[in-house]
Amino acid sequence: MGQVERIGVSLDEGLLGRFDELVAGQGYPNRSEAIRDLIRDRLSAEELGKPNARAIAGVFLVYDHHLGGLSQKMIDLQHNHLLQTVSSLHVHLDREDCLEVVILKGKVKDIAQVSDRLTSLKGVKLSRVNILALGG
Amino acid sequence: MGQVERIGVSLDEGLLGRFDELVAGQGYPNRSEAIRDLIRDRLSAEELGKPNARAIAGVFLVYDHHLGGLSQKMIDLQHNHLLQTVSSLHVHLDREDCLEVVILKGKVKDIAQVSDRLTSLKGVKLSRVNILALGG
Amino acid sequence: MGQVERIGVSLDEGLLGRFDELVAGQGYPNRSEAIRDLIRDRLSAEELGKPNARAIAGVFLVYDHHLGGLSQKMIDLQHNHLLQTVSSLHVHLDREDCLEVVILKGKVKDIAQVSDRLTSLKGVKLSRVNILALGG
Amino acid sequence: MGQVERIGVSLDEGLLGRFDELVAGQGYPNRSEAIRDLIRDRLSAEELGKPNARAIAGVFLVYDHHLGGLSQKMIDLQHNHLLQTVSSLHVHLDREDCLEVVILKGKVKDIAQVSDRLTSLKGVKLSRVNILALGG
Repeated sequence: MGQVERIGVSLDEGLLGRFDELVAGQGYPNRSEAIRDLIRDRLSAEELGKPNARAIAGVFLVYDHHLGGLSQKMIDLQHNHLLQTVSSLHVHLDREDCLEVVILKGKVKDIAQVSDRLTSLKGVKLSRVNILALGG
Repeated sequence: MGQVERIGVSLDEGLLGRFDELVAGQGYPNRSEAIRDLIRDRLSAEELGKPNARAIAGVFLVYDHHLGGLSQKMIDLQHNHLLQTVSSLHVHLDREDCLEVVILKGKVKDIAQVSDRLTSLKGVKLSRVNILALGG
Repeated sequence: MGQVERIGVSLDEGLLGRFDELVAGQGYPNRSEAIRDLIRDRLSAEELGKPNARAIAGVFLVYDHHLGGLSQKMIDLQHNHLLQTVSSLHVHLDREDCLEVVILKGKVKDIAQVSDRLTSLKGVKLSRVNILALGG
Repeated sequence: MGQVERIGVSLDEGLLGRFDELVAGQGYPNRSEAIRDLIRDRLSAEELGKPNARAIAGVFLVYDHHLGGLSQKMIDLQHNHLLQTVSSLHVHLDREDCLEVVILKGKVKDIAQVSDRLTSLKGVKLSRVNILALGG
């Protein structure tokens, strides 16, 4: 973290009052922390529009672990040469279903390609992909 | 608009630098305007979680205008007694398709019900619903 | 619309039962209509990843109409040579605020640029952009 | 998984052609698998509107691990008596930042409360919450 700077923001009292309620309700320690989060979120969303931006993704897969060969296919896909599969987490949900969270690191476009493959595997029931840009 | 207040926000220079680029890139006149937008967006998203919050919605419908009776069904649905259909806009897209933007005003839950009906009408090809909470 | 084809889809009875409830709850006339909507939505989302895809957008702006010159700036922005501003709709919300829905037609990337400018205008309090790809 | 049923879906050839391209492009083994995914996604999104629906969530947090006490606060929050914190995964990103993925199981409303607290902790730079409803 670099040097800390301080900027001034003007906003009308009505908006400030509602913002303060949100800050308190979510448990933020102060307004600056909340505003920094809003700014980082916006910047991260912006970065994701660039195919070559560096990002980290969590691919969230709910699947039926009885289906033979699915785990193997998942592992094969994760060993994609353009991506760095950082790690994965396996959670037992019930007698039938598992949750697998696969953490991928790489360029936005490469992550998109691998996560498409993962979510379309036979036996995968639900999926969501979370991408966060790792900006400058 | 009430009285204008001024608050201070501290953030490290790296984050500030990237934020300033965004502010300039999007054409914001200054940082305050951009931060106010981030705050209002966040508050509006928060409000939408409350079924009784007052909101305004734009229901975007792309449909085939050759299908008999669709326009009539749309108008019937808009005349829901719990909602105020403010107005609607009709755009000719090509030989086959039209875009209809229906503006609805009312409680979040009532808007959700009517927009579900609108988007599931036979002949509607694509739809999106945009809801903005009209907070405090 | 071209020739109609019929495909078979196999799914287990639990999933089918829950889907049928959704179809009925949303008021769809039949399953085919609901599945076509799911497919079109997915295809439209896919198209939006391509900067040159043809799209139609609704830019939704809530703004304070007392602010001098805002309307003029909006009109100037809409007269962008790369886009076709199809039309716009103005709704009076309360003593202070207006809603303006601007319909833009053009390439995804050009729409993104103009809608960024519109949403960052001073006086615009809330905004949302809805883009629908007009695929093949 | 229950008994498998087969339903027919009619759609015009243009839409079918574009859908088939998507199915192939994403690597789906067949159309049924792709349509089942679309249906499950839609049902899961629907469930999330109900505060008492059972869900599983992945809370993604990028944070600066130098900040004292943050890990302890995270662990305290995860030990919420209304939720079942299934597990969590810690990934080292660079000299400064870590990614923590916390898997929470419980009711939608309880997950929302805990994830709000987690994402607003001082030191958390970026966050995303992924919720999947575990329907019927």
